[in-house]
This record gives sequence, C-alpha cells and structure tokens, in this order.
Amino acid sequence: MKMILIILYVVALLSYTSDANSYTNDFCVANLAYSKTPSGYPCKSETIVTENDFTFSGLVAQSLKSPFNVGYKAATVNYLPGLNGLGISASRVDFGINGTVPMHFHPDATELTIIVEGVVTAGFITPTNVYVKTLKAGDVFVIPKGLLHFKFNSGPGKALTFSGFSSDNPRVHILDRLLFGNNLETHTIEKTTLLDENQIKKLKAQFGGTG
Amino acid sequence: MKMILIILYVVALLSYTSDANSYTNDFCVANLAYSKTPSGYPCKSETIVTENDFTFSGLVAQSLKSPFNVGYKAATVNYLPGLNGLGISASRVDFGINGTVPMHFHPDATELTIIVEGVVTAGFITPTNVYVKTLKAGDVFVIPKGLLHFKFNSGPGKALTFSGFSSDNPRVHILDRLLFGNNLETHTIEKTTLLDENQIKKLKAQFGGTG
Amino acid sequence: MKMILIILYVVALLSYTSDANSYTNDFCVANLAYSKTPSGYPCKSETIVTENDFTFSGLVAQSLKSPFNVGYKAATVNYLPGLNGLGISASRVDFGINGTVPMHFHPDATELTIIVEGVVTAGFITPTNVYVKTLKAGDVFVIPKGLLHFKFNSGPGKALTFSGFSSDNPRVHILDRLLFGNNLETHTIEKTTLLDENQIKKLKAQFGGTG
Amino acid sequence: MKMILIILYVVALLSYTSDANSYTNDFCVANLAYSKTPSGYPCKSETIVTENDFTFSGLVAQSLKSPFNVGYKAATVNYLPGLNGLGISASRVDFGINGTVPMHFHPDATELTIIVEGVVTAGFITPTNVYVKTLKAGDVFVIPKGLLHFKFNSGPGKALTFSGFSSDNPRVHILDRLLFGNNLETHTIEKTTLLDENQIKKLKAQFGGTG
Amino acid sequence: MKMILIILYVVALLSYTSDANSYTNDFCVANLAYSKTPSGYPCKSETIVTENDFTFSGLVAQSLKSPFNVGYKAATVNYLPGLNGLGISASRVDFGINGTVPMHFHPDATELTIIVEGVVTAGFITPTNVYVKTLKAGDVFVIPKGLLHFKFNSGPGKALTFSGFSSDNPRVHILDRLLFGNNLETHTIEKTTLLDENQIKKLKAQFGGTG
Amino acid sequence: MKMILIILYVVALLSYTSDANSYTNDFCVANLAYSKTPSGYPCKSETIVTENDFTFSGLVAQSLKSPFNVGYKAATVNYLPGLNGLGISASRVDFGINGTVPMHFHPDATELTIIVEGVVTAGFITPTNVYVKTLKAGDVFVIPKGLLHFKFNSGPGKALTFSGFSSDNPRVHILDRLLFGNNLETHTIEKTTLLDENQIKKLKAQFGGTG
Repeated sequence: MKMILIILYVVALLSYTSDANSYTNDFCVANLAYSKTPSGYPCKSETIVTENDFTFSGLVAQSLKSPFNVGYKAATVNYLPGLNGLGISASRVDFGINGTVPMHFHPDATELTIIVEGVVTAGFITPTNVYVKTLKAGDVFVIPKGLLHFKFNSGPGKALTFSGFSSDNPRVHILDRLLFGNNLETHTIEKTTLLDENQIKKLKAQFGGTG
Repeated sequence: MKMILIILYVVALLSYTSDANSYTNDFCVANLAYSKTPSGYPCKSETIVTENDFTFSGLVAQSLKSPFNVGYKAATVNYLPGLNGLGISASRVDFGINGTVPMHFHPDATELTIIVEGVVTAGFITPTNVYVKTLKAGDVFVIPKGLLHFKFNSGPGKALTFSGFSSDNPRVHILDRLLFGNNLETHTIEKTTLLDENQIKKLKAQFGGTG
Repeated sequence: MKMILIILYVVALLSYTSDANSYTNDFCVANLAYSKTPSGYPCKSETIVTENDFTFSGLVAQSLKSPFNVGYKAATVNYLPGLNGLGISASRVDFGINGTVPMHFHPDATELTIIVEGVVTAGFITPTNVYVKTLKAGDVFVIPKGLLHFKFNSGPGKALTFSGFSSDNPRVHILDRLLFGNNLETHTIEKTTLLDENQIKKLKAQFGGTG
Repeated sequence: MKMILIILYVVALLSYTSDANSYTNDFCVANLAYSKTPSGYPCKSETIVTENDFTFSGLVAQSLKSPFNVGYKAATVNYLPGLNGLGISASRVDFGINGTVPMHFHPDATELTIIVEGVVTAGFITPTNVYVKTLKAGDVFVIPKGLLHFKFNSGPGKALTFSGFSSDNPRVHILDRLLFGNNLETHTIEKTTLLDENQIKKLKAQFGGTG
Repeated sequence: MKMILIILYVVALLSYTSDANSYTNDFCVANLAYSKTPSGYPCKSETIVTENDFTFSGLVAQSLKSPFNVGYKAATVNYLPGLNGLGISASRVDFGINGTVPMHFHPDATELTIIVEGVVTAGFITPTNVYVKTLKAGDVFVIPKGLLHFKFNSGPGKALTFSGFSSDNPRVHILDRLLFGNNLETHTIEKTTLLDENQIKKLKAQFGGTG
Repeated sequence: MKMILIILYVVALLSYTSDANSYTNDFCVANLAYSKTPSGYPCKSETIVTENDFTFSGLVAQSLKSPFNVGYKAATVNYLPGLNGLGISASRVDFGINGTVPMHFHPDATELTIIVEGVVTAGFITPTNVYVKTLKAGDVFVIPKGLLHFKFNSGPGKALTFSGFSSDNPRVHILDRLLFGNNLETHTIEKTTLLDENQIKKLKAQFGGTG
C-alpha cells in the first residue's frame, strides 16, 4: 500500500517536474491535470503531445433540448487541449423549429457566427442601440466581446450555425440562469431589476432557483 | 467665406499632422477631437499637454436620482484625457436610504469597490454561483471583468463608495435598459428571456422602450 | 471647381474630427477610409454604425481554381468592419476532388478548422515534429499561430471546411508565392534553400516570378 | 512518521492536481501557496472559492510613521486573492500635517488618486517636464505607468487619499530605499548619480544602507 | 495663393485617406507625420513602403560626452519607422575610460545588454536587493522592465555594448535630469527625497535646473 | 530506499509550495524545473535569485558549421532564466565566407539585426513584395514578426551580427528542416508545394528526412 502511494507520487512528480528542453514556444498543449493560471493551463511536455491533442470529434448534430429547442456543443480547451492559450474556440448550434439561443453574454469573448443552413435572426444590445439581423446560409454575424445577445430560428425549417470565439474557453452566461437559477434572494432580484415578485418566483421555479 | 474655410482647414490639418519629436512613450493624452482606435484616442502633442490633462475635479457628492435613489459620477477618458490607453478609471456612488445600483455589467472591466461610508451589500453572479457580501467602511470588494453584479445600501444611513475600473472607459450595461429601454420587440424579449409579456410591457413603460 | 474641392474637404474633415461622445468601448467598427494603426483601423462614429457593419454575406460556395482545385473566401475586417480590433475572423474552403490548400502559414493567427462535409487531411510542422490527421464531418483541428501547414481532400467526393482565425485579418503566406512569385533572385533562393536552379525556374514560371 | 508524510503528500498532491471542470474563465482566484507565473498565481479550484476571496477589510485609517508622517495600506493580490490576473488593486494613504509620500515609482502600474479629505499636492516628472497639481476633495489625479512621482499634504489639516493601480501587485520603488537602503557601494552611487559622498553616507545611515 | 493651399490640402488628404487594400497585417510602418496612438503611429500605405523603412545606419562609434564620458545612439521608431508596434528597438553605448551610464530607468522596457568589447559593470536595484555583475565580451545581462539601473566601464581600456529593448521607443529617465534638470522647487525635492538643500542646488547648477 | 524517495518528495514539494511574500512583480525568474505555462515558466522564489540568473556568458565567437558556413548561438530563457516573461532575447551569428542563414521564420518574434562586422545582405518576403538590403557595420535591419527571411555574407571577409528578438524563446523554423527533415510523406510535400519528387528526395537525403 505504501509502495503504491509512493510510486503514484513519483509518477505524478516526474510528470510535473521536467527538463526545460521539453518545451518550445510553438504551442502549449494544456495539461488539464494541473492548476490553471490566468494565462491558461501549464503545458504538457512536447514529448507526449500528438495530433490528437489538436483534434476534437464532437461538433456533430446535437439532440434538441427543451425549453429552447436547440442543441449545443462546444470545442473548448477542456476538450481540445491544443487550444490552450491561443485565444480561439468553436461551437455548433442545431436549431429546431422556433429554436432559440436565449439572451446571454460571454464575458471574455467576441463571437463570430456562420449560418450553414436555414434562416436565423441574431441580435445584440448596447446601452444605446439594438443591432438585429436576419441571416441566411453563407452569412456571417459578429457579436462584439461581452455584449448581451440572442439568436433564434426565424425560418420555416431547421437551422445550423457554427461559431468561433476569441477565447479558448468562452463561458456562456445565460441571463435566466444568472437571475433565476441560484439562491439569490427574490427580494434582492426585485430590488436590483424591478421585476415583479411573481415573475421572479415563476422563473425561479422553471430554472431551479431557490430563495 | 472661402478664406474662412481654408483657414479652418489649415488649422485642423496643422493640429493633425505633427512632427514625431512631439511624442514620447511616457504617456498619450487623448486628443478627443479625433477618431478613436481600438487602443484608444490619438495622442495630443506633448507640447500642449499640461497637468490639467491629468486632473478631474468632479468626484464630489452627487444628487440622488429616482428610481434607484443613488447618485453616480465617473472619471473616464472622455473627461480625464490623461487616462487614454492606461487601462484604469474611477467612479463615485452616493447611496440614499435603500439606494441601489441596479443589476449591470461592464463588458471590458474589472471593478474594485472601496466602501468609504455606510454599509453596502454587493454581489456578483456566475453560471454556477452567487457571491454576496455585506461591507463596511474600509472594506474592498472585487467584481471580476464582465460579470453581472449589483450593490445596495443595507445600512440605516446613507453610504458612499469609490470604484476603480480596469478600463479607461468602462461602459455601464444596466440590464433594465438593455432589455426595456430600446425598440427590441416585446415578442423577441419574451422568446429569449421567457419573461411574461405583461412584465416586459410594464418595464418598457418605465425605461422608455418601444416595440 | 474650387468650391467642389472645398466642399469635399469639409465633408472629409467633418467625418474625421468628431465629438468624443460618439465613441464608447462597446466596439470600434473600422473606418476603412483612414490609415490603419498597429491596433487596427480608427473607429466609425457610433451614430452611423448599423447591423450591416457586423454582417458579411459571402461565405457561400466558391468556384474551384487551378492549380489546387479549391475555392476560398475570407470574412476579414476589410469586408466585415465590425471585426476591427476584436482578434477574430473566418474563412471557407471548398475542395474539389484532390483539392489542396498548399503549404502556407499565417504570421499572426491560430487557425481552427471545422470539417462540414467530406474527408480532409490536415497537418502542421514544427522543427521537431509533424502533426497530421485525417478528419471527417464534425471534427475540429487546431493549427497553432504561425506554423507551416496544409490541407487536402483525402476523400472520394468534394469537401467543405470553415475556419476561425485569432486575427481580424490573417494574412495567408503561401510558400510557393513567397519563394517563386516575386523578383527574388534565383541565385539567392538557391543559396538560402538549397533548391536546384532548375526547380526554382520551373516554379517561378508557374507562379509568375522573375529574376 | 512515514504515514504522516505520505498523507501530507497525498493532500498536497490532490489539492494540486485537479479536474479541469473546476476552472472556468470567469475568474482565477490566486492559490498563494503555489509558485507565481508571469501572468499571476495558479488558480484555486472554484469549488473552494467564496465571497471572502474577493473581500479585503483593511483600508481603514492607518497610524502615521516617521520620517514622512504618513500611514499606508494596500489591497493587493497577496491580501485579496480575487484580484489575481485582473490588473487592478488599491491603496489608502493617511497624511498627517506635512505628511509626504516620498519620491517613488511603480514599474508596472499607472496610479489614479482620489482625494477624499484635505489638500494634497501631487506631481510626476518626465525627462522633459514636471506636472504638479494641488488637489482638493473630489479631485482625481493620474500618474502614468512607471513615472517618478510624489505627494504631500499641502493643507492646514490632515488629508486622506485612495488610489487605484493598473496592476494586481504594484511594487513601490521609493527612491531613498533604492539608493540608500541596501549594500550598493557608496562609490558606485557617487559615480552614477554625482551625489556627494557625505550626502550618500548621511542618507545611508538614515535608510539602513551599508557599503 | 488659394490654389496652393487647396492643392496642399488635396495632397495631405489623399495621403491620409486611403483604400483598405493598401494595408495588411504583415507590418505597420510608422507614418511619423500623423498623430501617434497608444498602440503606435498610423501605418504608411504599403505601396510606398521600401526596405529603407526597415533600415537604420547609425549604430556606429559615437563621440564621448561629459560629464559621463560615454557616447550613446538609439535605433527607435522615430528613426526606424519599420519598428512601429513591434515592441523592440536597440541602442549602442561607447564607453571611454571610467565611462558611466548614470542611474536611470526605462518605464516601458526590459533591456538586454550585450558586451562586445571591454569590461563593464552593470547593476539594477529593487526594494529588496541589488544585482550587480562585472561583464566581459560575449556576456549578456538582463535588466527587467522599469527597474533603476546603471553601467560603468570597469576595465582598463574602452568598452562597447549593444542593447535590445522590449519597446519601439524606450524613453531614458536619467535620475539626475528628473531631479535636477527642471523647475521642480528645491523645497519639494528636499521634502520628498530628504536630500540636503545644498546638494540639490549644486546638482541643479550642473543639470540646468531652476527653482 | 523508501526514506530516500520520501525525502525527495518533501524537498520537491517544499520547493514548489512557497509563501506569497517570496514573489513581487519586479521580475519572474524562470524555474526551469517546472511545467511552462502560456505566459512562461513559474517563478523562482526571490530568496534564491541572484545576479547570475540575469547573466549569460555564451555570445562569443562560434565555430562555423556546414552546409551553411555560419556559427549560431542564442541567449534565450532556457539559458538565461531572468528573461522569463519579458518578451526579449538575443543571438549571435558568425559568418564565414559566403556564410548563409538559410530561409526561415520565427512564428512568435520580430528580429532586429545589428551588423557589427563585415557586409551582410538580409531580406524578408511578404505575399506582395520582397525587401532586401545590403548592410554594413553599424546598420540595423528589422524583420517583422513571423515573416520568411534570410541573411548571407555578401562581403569579401567574415561577418558578425547580433540580433534582438521580441520573444524570450524565439523558435527558429528553417524551411529546409520543416520540409525535408522529418517523416512527412514525399507525396504530401509534392502535392502541397508542387516541388518535384526528385528534388524532395535529394533534400530529404541531405536534411535527414524519411518517408
């Protein structure tokens, strides 16, 4: 038992300490087993990096989920460690009829959306204006970093979009989950948004919030 | 008439073109009369920069405004041109009884708040958690870049806070104004937030929205 | 005639000088008529920005061109001014049978490629290794910033890929054009690459080089 | 004994290795127990982050110290781990009568000072100019990154300022300590500053220097 | 007369406005005639860029100047416009016997010094330590960004060094000029450095200061 | 045996965990024994940093190597840990008669070359132009980040250059090694460069490639 623990340590330690010659500046594939830093994950030794660290096989058709009738899949650094520190990632959205990507924002990323199939209406909001556009296959739409935005299927059939993001791990902050999916007190939400108590409680019930 | 126009051009052109020796890398005071770039405003020639370009005299007590019963003043690059490109600015909030800084976010800035007087409750929200803290004079609270947050006076008297921001012009995106203060269609808001139509119309009336 | 010139100046000048309140930090849409800076183009006044500044309608099927039998289209800041300063852009490649994106690199951008249709082999090269992967629809492949890389259609039919780039204007440095498409002396190419003179002259003939 | 060491290792190792799902891009609270990197400290797992990581309770009135008759307290990443990687921090200075913040610079930070009480004269110096301003409550003064600067109480009573910095840990390089508070040889200081030997020795005695 | 002015405008305006196709992301050669921005100068159109924009012919032997008996020449963006926005520049120092580069700092740049000839002692200072090293031909010494430092010829003959800087225009802040070369009041210097009045006046006389 | 392993762990662990007070923002000397991150290596504790961490003694005359008849030595972070995270490094090239630095690029660095002795022709290539210049002692030449470039001795005697780079570890991507020094299939090289099979095989033989 002791020996097993000791061997585990040796292995862990050896994989952590490493000679400097095993790193270049060509890339820094994430070692997801170690603590992240503000610039990203520590790098794997290049001696164990392969083409698979730069490949992700999951941006295929996704099943649609309620209540918004869309499917979503992201290729971020946690699944594609070759993205570490490179400031880019991607996602795919499958839209059913009336499918909607609800109001949300990405605190650290610009989004560039490519319409591959169908008709999609996308928009973003600033304190002074709303920018909304209905898009068809071959169109590209840009949502600048940090702005509140939404998309929905405005065509008669299904739709498909791919997006690129200027972050290797663009967090998705869906407004309903931020407001109604946690234990923030109803009274505090009321005071800071002027939403009615009934409305808050109704959506807390839907998004799993308490308090 | 022609001569006046011509003279205007000469003046404008001369103030625009300039010899390279009039710039160093010590600072770049904003020339607010010219087009901004992604890194900030073009610099004034150092020959016309004075200490007043680095001074702003307005972070004094502000009158309280409804409906949130707070006063707000910001020292950003548009008022303090010496901040240009330096990634920092400041603001002051005066809180009346129950005064509230409503739910909002800054797409490009971390906020660091110093409580100078009174008792203030501040909080921010991520998709996985809510971080709320009640603060007193001498306390500092950090709201990481881009996150949805709020503050309110939770003490018996008035309160005063100063904030620093990691941007020279941190835009304030108040949720109510984004959702209810423009011409975004009620139906679109409903679809992308699941708020009730009545609730949306009620708040559009309050925040000046149409559609 | 004089009046026309004068009016032209006034218009040009007025569109250049502008009041500071016409810029926020929410975005900086490129004013492509003015000189670029290291951080991007000067911004358009927000009063004339519309949703069309964030939209590009050209990532549709492209005709195939010889000698590589691929079609290529990019959505960069010059065509999509809303991308200015945001560090992201996109492109589309249509591959005919045996279609090839020749050996090239992007000096300022990581590329993330999404396979939408067909089978594509992609690879990149470092001084110590070659990373090659055969990819199918739904796969994503990352080519870290600045590395020499290639793609080719390795399936039985046509293929389609979309790519995101971590730059708003990722220049494409195709090796053959750099070496054989200009007036760099044959003797210099020979000396610095050890390629044979005959080989150099043959490819200069094909890519339009002289010298 | 062996078992205790082994258990210590396991605990240390487990707290170090961690699953990638415990990090997002919302923030990176410093784990001060691990080695810093050029971008900041490694992040704590989000599962153990609380609101207290974003709170510091020490910017209260400080006792005055000789010889400069000021009190100083800073809220930097080492005391407020939520600041990690966010490029901002704060400090407070209490000025007694004639209280002075001596000539110093911050190699990695712009400083923005808010006068809360009293009258303070602040100034900074470039190779071509001196910018000095006498400030009152409500005034803000900017000291661009890396420039030599000073402040002193120029009013009849005490004074209070808060400062924001564009760094999460802005080191304070006080000129007297750099020149006279270490073992740099008197002859070297003389040669490189042209200060007189007597002057150097007098100040070395005051600031603890040797040599 | 009017026609001349008008023609001047047309030329100026045409050289300012330009079509977007005349810029790529390969480089941004400084147009030194226009206002700098925080990221550097606006770019020249690539159609008028030549190899001479990337060449500077002045890092040759410099005559020695009193009182420090060194010669100095820098290749910065103002003389080498191809450096614009690239974060690098260079300089040359010729040391006579006992030649000294006086105590100074670069607010925005790390310096890397290569000793080409002779023996040079270099050092830098932090609040906690002094790092001094005597160097010979072939040695390299690093002075991290923003730190106070000095160099002097410690060999029997002359010496020569080249330095690289991590800035395209690293300003040189020589301590004596900052303290004694301007109109900063003697009393203020005394109060903020604790230097004696006599010492200050003596050095003000030498470095051209008043007040 | 067990005790030795245990002691090794303790030592390793203690050197890894550390108190926050052992780091400032003045510098971050690389601890080359730990995993690199996207921003560089973790820092050594300042308590064990010395002037030797900022010194490298190897930029002395190098022996010439075939086939290019040049000698090369670099002062990068792996040999000069004080460079960590500072975005600068240096190298030296000794040129024999006809000595050539073959066609190559640095994916992450601008190069600034100083000619110290002899006559050197340097050039870089963009998709639209070639910039070539013959340089003599005292000349400086800039090669913007990521561009393909070369140098050769074009004088009658030997030559010497020093270069600065805007990266602490600028990888050298020599075209011949990328194309002909690994196991990339001859057929793939042919298809993606249009080089002839015979040419590829000839150079693979010279540069050690297989496949």
